[in-house]
Amino acid sequence: MDLKSFIEVQPDSHFPIQNLPYGVFRTAPDLPPRPGVAIGEYVLDLSEIASAGLFDGPLLKNSDCFNQPNLNKFLSLGRPAWKEARATLQKLLSSTEPTLRDNEALRLKSLIPLKQVNMVLPVAIHDYTDFFSSMHHAKNCGTIFRGPVDPIVPNWFHLPIAYHGRASSIVISGTEIVRPRGQSRPVGDSPPPFGPSAKLDFELEMAAVVGTGNLLGKPVDINEAEDHIFGLVLMNDWSARDIQAWEYVPLGPFLGKSFGTTISPWIVTLEALEPFKCDAPKQDPAPLPYLTEKESKNYDISLEVRIRPAGESDAHIVSKSNFKHLYWTLPQQLAHHTVNGCNLQPGDLLGTGTISGPEPESLGCLLELTWNGEKPLELANGLHRKFLEDGDEVVFTGQCEGDGYTVGFGTCAGKILPSAEEKDLINYKS
Amino acid sequence: MDLKSFIEVQPDSHFPIQNLPYGVFRTAPDLPPRPGVAIGEYVLDLSEIASAGLFDGPLLKNSDCFNQPNLNKFLSLGRPAWKEARATLQKLLSSTEPTLRDNEALRLKSLIPLKQVNMVLPVAIHDYTDFFSSMHHAKNCGTIFRGPVDPIVPNWFHLPIAYHGRASSIVISGTEIVRPRGQSRPVGDSPPPFGPSAKLDFELEMAAVVGTGNLLGKPVDINEAEDHIFGLVLMNDWSARDIQAWEYVPLGPFLGKSFGTTISPWIVTLEALEPFKCDAPKQDPAPLPYLTEKESKNYDISLEVRIRPAGESDAHIVSKSNFKHLYWTLPQQLAHHTVNGCNLQPGDLLGTGTISGPEPESLGCLLELTWNGEKPLELANGLHRKFLEDGDEVVFTGQCEGDGYTVGFGTCAGKILPSAEEKDLINYKS
Repeated sequence: MDLKSFIEVQPDSHFPIQNLPYGVFRTAPDLPPRPGVAIGEYVLDLSEIASAGLFDGPLLKNSDCFNQPNLNKFLSLGRPAWKEARATLQKLLSSTEPTLRDNEALRLKSLIPLKQVNMVLPVAIHDYTDFFSSMHHAKNCGTIFRGPVDPIVPNWFHLPIAYHGRASSIVISGTEIVRPRGQSRPVGDSPPPFGPSAKLDFELEMAAVVGTGNLLGKPVDINEAEDHIFGLVLMNDWSARDIQAWEYVPLGPFLGKSFGTTISPWIVTLEALEPFKCDAPKQDPAPLPYLTEKESKNYDISLEVRIRPAGESDAHIVSKSNFKHLYWTLPQQLAHHTVNGCNLQPGDLLGTGTISGPEPESLGCLLELTWNGEKPLELANGLHRKFLEDGDEVVFTGQCEGDGYTVGFGTCAGKILPSAEEKDLINYKS
Repeated sequence: MDLKSFIEVQPDSHFPIQNLPYGVFRTAPDLPPRPGVAIGEYVLDLSEIASAGLFDGPLLKNSDCFNQPNLNKFLSLGRPAWKEARATLQKLLSSTEPTLRDNEALRLKSLIPLKQVNMVLPVAIHDYTDFFSSMHHAKNCGTIFRGPVDPIVPNWFHLPIAYHGRASSIVISGTEIVRPRGQSRPVGDSPPPFGPSAKLDFELEMAAVVGTGNLLGKPVDINEAEDHIFGLVLMNDWSARDIQAWEYVPLGPFLGKSFGTTISPWIVTLEALEPFKCDAPKQDPAPLPYLTEKESKNYDISLEVRIRPAGESDAHIVSKSNFKHLYWTLPQQLAHHTVNGCNLQPGDLLGTGTISGPEPESLGCLLELTWNGEKPLELANGLHRKFLEDGDEVVFTGQCEGDGYTVGFGTCAGKILPSAEEKDLINYKS
């Protein structure tokens, strides 16, 4: 691609002009958060661009959608407005366009070094749903928990299985995660053991951010489902396997997941991901008509998981996977979610579930990588992990390789803090 | 009780001065919704009372919590503010207090006949959790789905099992419910059948409305849990049993529930329910320390379910149950929910799960009442139901009998509309 910005972008940057992911940032704790796009080592403040009257297309010129503390209003405007914003911003940032390039005052106001900002959650997330769309993950979990005979439950090949997750505990990359306490399965007639989780895990996921919603009682057609998705983020669905294993029958995961879910700050749009579409896996049996797409596509997004133990400067790669391994596509997930009439809203998050590939090194969680702790994973010489230890930082990255540029997601990181002591368990009273 | 209002309250009214439940209402579609309390046949407009400067206690006199489109801000202020508001309102409405009684202009502005208002959701619900706290319901469902041997799963007696529900599809009483479509379990090697649910059910529940929340990573102590609960509403967790049965293994209920959940408009406060506390069932085995209460209490709330078929004027009673049958108490539910560090927020909803009692007539859903459709229920002479039919209206009521007065919840009602036709499935585009 010849498209180039007047802002210098390093070849390995995740944020060239071809990407322009959306996030929400603060420059000081007492200033309101505002929307921006990442470009190289900078964030472009969209509230300043809007104030300067530079969103001059028909859909955005009178909108206050960038003078908001989150992206929900912009997302609710729909794909035509998203395309208009992208065209405006790509033009404004291009090397041949003088409007911003040659306006030093506006450049100083609107382009802020990424190192000087704090990112916050880009959207107000009303509801968060987590799917279970990797066949390899479903097979491995089934084998570990229920044995090698028919490890994948019979419904799995007919519908994208999902559960409702906890929205309140979704946090932005960089937030520390307190090791949860809880019950685990008792031995014999003893009471269930209670204490800090001994099987704390990450889950390598991505999540779709819903753009436009649908009304209650009005399902979204499978071939229009993609238009309801604004973009993707990286997601770590932290999991306490011991708590989960004891509680999840019959109503599904609850406290084993609800203590924290981390997302990356930058939403990469489907427009930026368009060049990286690839064929989705062939589905057998054929899905029912309401899940049958005219064209069934995934995205080729390389994913990597690293663990940095406490006090170490080096992070060790523990998994390399790819979004393209998912069996159920994003439009199928969204169409299924609404087929009963359930209403989605702008900013809702649809997690993919753990993205495991077919190879041993492409498994997306320690449960699979260590086979439930049976085979410790070597991080480095003499350093092993069955599950996460206090002080471990887990870092996800994701990127698509273009012709001379990279469309990346940045990182999704979180560090484990020790479980709260009783004395620290002071209630929040406002 | 001698407490009496200057407003006439019929002896069978749910809303005497001893109750004063909170709701949010509109008087016209173009006017903003505002908080009120119900008194007899009227709603008292709290925004008018606040504007008149009559919330003169130290916690509320400078607050704008009643000039809001929902109760979340008021709820976030905590129990001392809730007690102050109750004391102010009980005094203001009492027969011996002239301030409002003798001010005709203020009375006309602030007291609006209930028949002239439309109720809306009283709180912005960020997260909705549904528990599974009735032993009778757990036993009956287990027997129906898995057989009579050990029908209750082993974890059930150790922890209040719950799942995350869908918050977006929670609607106010009176909202029509579209029969959901979905997959159900296939026979043999056939593809799963797809279509309108043939096993549409109600679930008789109540839900706690969270007042003050807790910070992520900071569990709430069991003996402080009650202080985080503002009050209770009636809740109908509509369920499509055929969709649910096929999808729910291994991650729990999803589309079988997420098409609609109805709550009653009036939140009855724990203060109003205080006289109706009763001993909770003895728990065996004893709960773990984090679930052990100094005093374990339920509430004696009579519940009733009626079905009114399409075109009929009469509704037929199909169940009589009571909140006191619940095995796990509200504080236990809330303490368990947060023990892993999960954060609750003002306005979160904690459903109890279906409230079934021990008697055949006290079962809280058609699944149990008709034993999964095997034994049709007689509504009236010649009129039977296995599950709900199009046009059926389901009405819940709940009330506590005081000495000469009733503290009631009003009604929680919803009517079933036929499943959407393909031609009606137009996507929402804003």
